[in-house]
Amino acid sequence: MEYLVKDISLAEQGKNQLEWAEMHMPTLMRIRAELEEKKPLRGITVAAVLHVTKETGVLVRTLKRAGADVFLAASNPLSTQDDVAAALAKYDEINVFAWRGETEAEYYSNMEKIIKHSPQIVMDDGGDLHALLHDKNLTDTVIGGTEETTTGVVRLKAMEEQGVLKYPVIAVNNAYTKYLFDNRFGTGQSAIDGILRATNVLLAGKICVVVGYGWVGRGIASRLRGAGARVIVVEANALRALEAVMEGYEVLPMRKAAEMGDIFITATGNINVISKEHILKMKNGAILANAGHFNVEIDVEGLKQVSRSRRVIRPYTEEYELINGKKVYLLAEGRLVNLAAAEGHPSEVMDLSFSNQALSVVYIVQNRGQMTPKVFDVPREIDERVAELKLESMGIEKEELTQQQREYMRQWRYGT
Amino acid sequence: MEYLVKDISLAEQGKNQLEWAEMHMPTLMRIRAELEEKKPLRGITVAAVLHVTKETGVLVRTLKRAGADVFLAASNPLSTQDDVAAALAKYDEINVFAWRGETEAEYYSNMEKIIKHSPQIVMDDGGDLHALLHDKNLTDTVIGGTEETTTGVVRLKAMEEQGVLKYPVIAVNNAYTKYLFDNRFGTGQSAIDGILRATNVLLAGKICVVVGYGWVGRGIASRLRGAGARVIVVEANALRALEAVMEGYEVLPMRKAAEMGDIFITATGNINVISKEHILKMKNGAILANAGHFNVEIDVEGLKQVSRSRRVIRPYTEEYELINGKKVYLLAEGRLVNLAAAEGHPSEVMDLSFSNQALSVVYIVQNRGQMTPKVFDVPREIDERVAELKLESMGIEKEELTQQQREYMRQWRYGT
Amino acid sequence: MEYLVKDISLAEQGKNQLEWAEMHMPTLMRIRAELEEKKPLRGITVAAVLHVTKETGVLVRTLKRAGADVFLAASNPLSTQDDVAAALAKYDEINVFAWRGETEAEYYSNMEKIIKHSPQIVMDDGGDLHALLHDKNLTDTVIGGTEETTTGVVRLKAMEEQGVLKYPVIAVNNAYTKYLFDNRFGTGQSAIDGILRATNVLLAGKICVVVGYGWVGRGIASRLRGAGARVIVVEANALRALEAVMEGYEVLPMRKAAEMGDIFITATGNINVISKEHILKMKNGAILANAGHFNVEIDVEGLKQVSRSRRVIRPYTEEYELINGKKVYLLAEGRLVNLAAAEGHPSEVMDLSFSNQALSVVYIVQNRGQMTPKVFDVPREIDERVAELKLESMGIEKEELTQQQREYMRQWRYGT
Amino acid sequence: MEYLVKDISLAEQGKNQLEWAEMHMPTLMRIRAELEEKKPLRGITVAAVLHVTKETGVLVRTLKRAGADVFLAASNPLSTQDDVAAALAKYDEINVFAWRGETEAEYYSNMEKIIKHSPQIVMDDGGDLHALLHDKNLTDTVIGGTEETTTGVVRLKAMEEQGVLKYPVIAVNNAYTKYLFDNRFGTGQSAIDGILRATNVLLAGKICVVVGYGWVGRGIASRLRGAGARVIVVEANALRALEAVMEGYEVLPMRKAAEMGDIFITATGNINVISKEHILKMKNGAILANAGHFNVEIDVEGLKQVSRSRRVIRPYTEEYELINGKKVYLLAEGRLVNLAAAEGHPSEVMDLSFSNQALSVVYIVQNRGQMTPKVFDVPREIDERVAELKLESMGIEKEELTQQQREYMRQWRYGT
Repeated sequence: MEYLVKDISLAEQGKNQLEWAEMHMPTLMRIRAELEEKKPLRGITVAAVLHVTKETGVLVRTLKRAGADVFLAASNPLSTQDDVAAALAKYDEINVFAWRGETEAEYYSNMEKIIKHSPQIVMDDGGDLHALLHDKNLTDTVIGGTEETTTGVVRLKAMEEQGVLKYPVIAVNNAYTKYLFDNRFGTGQSAIDGILRATNVLLAGKICVVVGYGWVGRGIASRLRGAGARVIVVEANALRALEAVMEGYEVLPMRKAAEMGDIFITATGNINVISKEHILKMKNGAILANAGHFNVEIDVEGLKQVSRSRRVIRPYTEEYELINGKKVYLLAEGRLVNLAAAEGHPSEVMDLSFSNQALSVVYIVQNRGQMTPKVFDVPREIDERVAELKLESMGIEKEELTQQQREYMRQWRYGT
Repeated sequence: MEYLVKDISLAEQGKNQLEWAEMHMPTLMRIRAELEEKKPLRGITVAAVLHVTKETGVLVRTLKRAGADVFLAASNPLSTQDDVAAALAKYDEINVFAWRGETEAEYYSNMEKIIKHSPQIVMDDGGDLHALLHDKNLTDTVIGGTEETTTGVVRLKAMEEQGVLKYPVIAVNNAYTKYLFDNRFGTGQSAIDGILRATNVLLAGKICVVVGYGWVGRGIASRLRGAGARVIVVEANALRALEAVMEGYEVLPMRKAAEMGDIFITATGNINVISKEHILKMKNGAILANAGHFNVEIDVEGLKQVSRSRRVIRPYTEEYELINGKKVYLLAEGRLVNLAAAEGHPSEVMDLSFSNQALSVVYIVQNRGQMTPKVFDVPREIDERVAELKLESMGIEKEELTQQQREYMRQWRYGT
Repeated sequence: MEYLVKDISLAEQGKNQLEWAEMHMPTLMRIRAELEEKKPLRGITVAAVLHVTKETGVLVRTLKRAGADVFLAASNPLSTQDDVAAALAKYDEINVFAWRGETEAEYYSNMEKIIKHSPQIVMDDGGDLHALLHDKNLTDTVIGGTEETTTGVVRLKAMEEQGVLKYPVIAVNNAYTKYLFDNRFGTGQSAIDGILRATNVLLAGKICVVVGYGWVGRGIASRLRGAGARVIVVEANALRALEAVMEGYEVLPMRKAAEMGDIFITATGNINVISKEHILKMKNGAILANAGHFNVEIDVEGLKQVSRSRRVIRPYTEEYELINGKKVYLLAEGRLVNLAAAEGHPSEVMDLSFSNQALSVVYIVQNRGQMTPKVFDVPREIDERVAELKLESMGIEKEELTQQQREYMRQWRYGT
Repeated sequence: MEYLVKDISLAEQGKNQLEWAEMHMPTLMRIRAELEEKKPLRGITVAAVLHVTKETGVLVRTLKRAGADVFLAASNPLSTQDDVAAALAKYDEINVFAWRGETEAEYYSNMEKIIKHSPQIVMDDGGDLHALLHDKNLTDTVIGGTEETTTGVVRLKAMEEQGVLKYPVIAVNNAYTKYLFDNRFGTGQSAIDGILRATNVLLAGKICVVVGYGWVGRGIASRLRGAGARVIVVEANALRALEAVMEGYEVLPMRKAAEMGDIFITATGNINVISKEHILKMKNGAILANAGHFNVEIDVEGLKQVSRSRRVIRPYTEEYELINGKKVYLLAEGRLVNLAAAEGHPSEVMDLSFSNQALSVVYIVQNRGQMTPKVFDVPREIDERVAELKLESMGIEKEELTQQQREYMRQWRYGT
C-alpha cells in the first residue's frame, strides 16, 4: 500500500468525519452491506479521481469492502479534506495521493501515480483522468469507467463522436438521482455556503447574478432567492433563458448584468463567461465566485491584467484593486467555491450520486465485454432503486399503483 | 361552409376575445405574418379537435390564413367558449362544431362531422380524434398529425408500439417550449384560477393535496405554495416522489393524505386516483378538483355510490352529502377544472404551444412522404425558434456565446 | 321592514351563497351560537355600511340573531352581491339598501336611508358613514362605532385629532387578527383573483409593479411572486422601502417603474399615485388595477384626458387608446379590483375580521358610557380569543407554556 | 489603557476583518464621518457588553472617534472574534476584556472590570450588564443606556414595572430598522449558516422544527423554507401561531413535533422549550440548535441526565448517546449558534442596528437630564434617518409624495 497525504496524524479526526458522513448516507450504507457480503469487485483495480471529501471516503470504503483495490487522487487542487485522506490511508488501505493546495504539477503527478497500476475501472470527476489515460494510451486494461460531472460527460461525448473513446463509460451525471439532486440541491446549497463562509455578507437585498441556468445555475438561483436576494440570470440558450424568465428572474446579457451585480456566480461549464471587460464595469465591492467544475469561467488572468494590486483580506477572499480604482473580490481563486471555501456537497446528496457510482461500477464489471466504447446512461433500474432506497431511509411512503391503474396506462382506446 | 355553435349572435363578443388573445400571443402572430405571405397550407384540409377557446381561435385563424381549410370540434364537452366559436364561424370561415355543455353523444357526433371531410392534417388534444380515425379506418387521406397532451402522446406511443399507428404524428406536447411552460406555468396558474372562481376559498393555511407530480402537478404544487397553502404530494414514481421531498413537500400515499386535505387536485393521467374509499376518509368540507386531461382521475361514479344526495351550491361546485354524513364538494364534475371553471391556459402559454403546432403542421406538409408512421418530437430548430421569438417579443436579450466559447464547448483535452 | 335590492328573486341563490360562506366562517358561527343565546344586542339599532357580500351577510345575520335591528348599505358602488342582498332582505329581515352598479347619487342616498333610523351602533368600511353622520350632525343617538379599513381609521384619527369625533370607535382594522390576515392574505389573494378573472393573463414572467408596501401591498407582492411574476415595489416611506429591498424586491420610484411594468396595482390609500404622466410612459398593453379602498389612486380623469378613445374589451377590462397610440387597460374603472371583478376576500379571512366586528359591537354596547370619543384598538382579549377560536376550528394545537416558563418571562435577574 | 485578549498578535488579521466590515456598513460609516467632526461624546465613558465581533468593532471605533472612552466586554462566552478584540486593543485604544471560550466566572469578571470605570453610558446586549449595575448599586454615574435584544428589553420592562430601573434606556431592539432587519434577516441567515458550518447537512427535504415564531423564528423559518426544508412551527401565542398557519407552515405542539424533526432550532427567549422528555422522543440523528439569546432554551442539563455518553464529533457538534440508544447532536453547547459556529449577523444588518446604537447614544447624551428612568423606543426620526441613509448607500431611490398627496393624507371628508 502507498499513499501521499498532508498529515497522517489527522486520521483520527478524519475517522469522525467519515462516521458523520456515513450517518447521512444511508442509501450507500445499505448498498455497502449487500456488496460487502457478495464481494462483486474482488480482484478489481479501481483508479478514481474524485474530490477527496468525507463522502468520497464513504464511497471508496464501499468499493474496498466490495473487494476492490482502490487508488485515489484529487479532482481539484483545493478540494481535498486532509483529515479524510489521512483516515482512508491509515484505516482503510486506500492508496490515496491527495492534499489540499496541490500545485498544478502535483495535481497531474498524483493522477499519474494512480494510472500506473493498470486500472480496470476508471472513476472520474471532470474528465481529466479519462483524457489522460487516452492521451497516454493506457486504456488497455480498462473494462470501463464512470463520470460524475456534466463537464466530463460533454468531453466524453466529444471523444465518442470523434471516435477516440476506448472503453464504455457510464455517465453517472445523467442519472435522474444525480443531476436533479446533486447539481441542483447539492451545489445550490453548498455554493452559497462557500460564499458565506468566505465573506459573511448578507444575501437579503443583494443583487446576485447567476451566469448559466443549467441544473447548477437553477439550484443556486433558487437558493439565493430563498435567502432574500434579487437574482439576475445570464444564459445563452434561448429555451433556458425563457424558463428563467417564467420563473420570475430578470434575464440580461452579461454586459448589462455586470454593472448591476453585488455578487456574481458562474455555472456554465464554459470559458471566460466573466471577462476583464465585464469586470471593469462592475460596482466597487463586487464579489466573484465560481460554481462550475473548472476554474476557467472567470477570466482570472484577465482580472490580474486589469488590477494594480491584490491581497487576501479573509480566507478564500482575495481583494483586487482594479486599474479604475474600484475593488472586486475573487473567492477561492475562481475555483469551485463550494469545495474550496466550504465542504462541498452535503453527504445526503452524495448519498444518491455515489450509490449510482457504486452500482454502476458493479454493473460494468458484471457486464464486462458486453458494452461498446460509448457513453451510457445509468441503467434506469439502478436509478429507480437508488430513489426507492433513499425514500425508504427517510421513512417516506410513496403511492402504489393499483392493478386497474397499471392497465389503464397501457391502453389507448377510450377517453372523453 | 358549415358550423354548429350555441349562438351565432355572440360573434361580436367573441371577436373582442380573439383580439385580446392576439395581443397576448405575439409569437404566433409573428409566425402568422410569415405564413400568410407564403401560404404553405394552400389546399390542405385540417381536422382539429382542440379546446375551443380564444387561443385555439388564434391558432386556427393562423392556419386558415396560411391557406388551410379548417374543421374544428371540441376536445372536451365543457371547455368551449361559445362566443369564440361563433366568431370563428361568422368572421373566419372556420367550420366549427362545438358548444359548451355537449352531451357525450354530441361530443362524438361533432368529431365525426369533421372527419367526413377527408382531412390531410389531424390535430388532436387527448388522442380521441386519432383513435377515432384509426377505429373507423379513415386514415388514408392523412399526411400526418399533431398531438397536444401528455395523455394523447401516451396513447399514440402505445399505438406505435402495437404497430397500429397509420401516419406520423408530431408530439407537440414534447416540445421543451410546450411541456415546460404550458403544463407547468399554464395549468399551474389556471387550475388554481378555476378552483378560486368555483369556490372563492382562501388558499393560505389550507392543506392542499396534489396527486401526481409530473409537470402539471409540480406547476400546481408550486403555485399553491406561492399562495400560502401547505402542500402534500401523492406520487407513485420513486424518482418524482423523491424530487417532491427535496422541494420541501410532504409526500404521503393517498390513503393517508385523504384524511388530511382541505383541497385535492389530481394530475396523474391515471384512473381512480381518488377512490370512494379515499373519499369516505375525507374531512367535512373537502374540495375535489381535477387538472388531468380526462375526467377519470376522481372516481365520480364511486362518489355517487357513497353519497345520499347532491346539489349544485355554486356554479361548478356540487355538494355531495356522503353516507357518513360528511359533505364533499366536486368541482366541474371532475373535468379539467381550469377549462370548465375558468378560461383554460392564459394566452401567453398557448402562444408557445400553438406556435409549435402551427410550425409542426407546416413541417409535416413540407416533409410529406418522408416521415414514417411514428410519434416524432418537435424538431429542435422549431422549438428553439419559438423560444427566441418569444424572448424577442418580451424585449429580453439573452447572452451570446463568443467564438472562443463555442470552440471550448467542442474540445475535450485540457482541464485542471 | 324596508329594503331596496336589484332583484328579490335572487334570494334563493343568495341563500346558498350564505350557506357556503357560513361553512367557511366557523369562528363567527361559534360566536353567533353564543350571542344567539344571550341576545346582548336586544333593542339595539345598527347602521352598517359594508361591502354587501356573502360574508357581510353572515355578520349581519349574526347581529340580528344577537337581537339587533340592522340597516345595511353598500360601502362601494360596485361590490354588492345582488343575490346575497336579496336573501338578507327576504329571509333575514335585514333592511338592506344596496345593488351592484349604484350611481354616486344612489350610493349616498342609500347611506342616508339607513341613518334616518337613529342608529346606536355605526359600522363602517372606509369612513364615509362616520363622516356623513358627523357632517349632518346625526350623532346624538350613537353609542359607538367600528371601522373596518386602514383608510377609515386614518380619517377617524384625523377627526379625533381635530377634536370633532363625537363617539368612540373601535378600529377593527387594527386588530392583529384583522390587519395581518385580511389585508395581507385576503386582499393578497383576491386582488390577483380579480385581475385574472378580468384579464386571464399569465402572471409568470410578467413585470408587476406594486404601488404601496403596506399590509395590502406586501400581500399582493408576495402572491405575485408566488405566481412567478417579477415584482417591482414603489413606496414613499423609507422604512417600508428598505423592507421591500430586503425581501428581494426591486424598489423604484414610479416614474421609472412606469416604463417597465406589464401590470400595475395600487395599494397606497393615497391619491393619483398613478398619474397621466406615468401612464404616457407605459408600455403598450399595460394593465392598471387598484386594490386600495377608494378609486382615487389611479388618476382616471387624467387617463381620460390623455386618451383618444375607450371601449370595454372584456367584462371589467376597459381599453384606453392613448394620444401616443399605445393602449392601456383599466380594470374595474379603478375601483377595488378584488370586489368588483372577483368576490372580495375569501370567507375565511372575513371570518376573522367579522368575528372582531361582532365582538367589538357587543363590547361597545356593554361598555356604554365608559368610552370617550376616541379611536380605540380592539381589546387584546377579543383579538386573542378570535385567534384561539380560529385555530380550534382548524384543528390546530398550539404550544402551552409551562409554569416555569411563565415565571421565567417575568424575572429579569439571571442570564449568562 | 487596559485590555485582556487571547492573543494580541492577531491584531493585523483583525484589522483586515474590521476593514471588510466597514466596507459593508456604509450607513454607520457615514454617521461616523459626521460624529468624528463634531465629537458629541467627548469626555463620555461608555461601558459596552456586546458580542465582540468585527461589526461591534466598527461601532466602538465610531464611538471612540466621536470622543468617547470605551470599555468593552463580551455578551456571550463563545462569540468573541479574538482577532478583532486584538485589533481594537492594539490600534484603537479600546479597553477590551474578551476572548472566545470564557468560563462563566471569566465572563462575569470581565463585565465587572468594565463597570469599575464609572460609566456614563451603558450599552448592553441581553440585559446582564444592566442587571449587574443595578444589583451592585453602581448606577449613580449613568446618564442612560441602550439595549440591543428582545430578551434584554423584556427584562428591562420588568425592571421598569417593578420600579427598580434607575436610568433611561433606549430599546434599540425596538427600532423598526433593528427588529425587522437584524432579527429577521440577520439571524435568519446566520443561524442557518452556523448550523451548516457545524454540520454540513443538506437542508432540502429535511423536517426542521422552529420553536418560537417571533421575528427571529420567522426569519429562520423563511430561510429554511427557501433552502428546501419542510418547516414545522411550535408557538405558544395564538396570534403568532395563526400567522404561521397562514404562511403555510405546519403548526404543532412540541410534544408532537419532537417525534418528527430532523433539525430543531429554538428562538423563544424562554426556558426549557426543548426538555429532556422531548429529546427522548426524537429520531436518531436529530440536531439541536439555539438561536435565542441565552443558552436556556434547550435543557442541556436535562439532556446530560438522559445521556449515557457524549463526544465532540465535529467542531461545535457534540454527539449525545441517549439512554434509549439513540443519538442526538447538540450544536455550540446550546448557545447562540450563529455567533458560536458562524460569525454572527452579517455586517449589513449590524450596519442598521449599530447606526441606531450610535445615534441613540448621542441622543441620550444630548438629552441628559430630560429622560426619566424608563424604557424608550428609538426616536422615530433616528429610525427613519437610518433607513434613508441605508437606501442611499445602496443606490435605491424611493418614491416621493407630491404636495397633493401630503394634503390628501390629512383630510377626512371626501370618499366614494
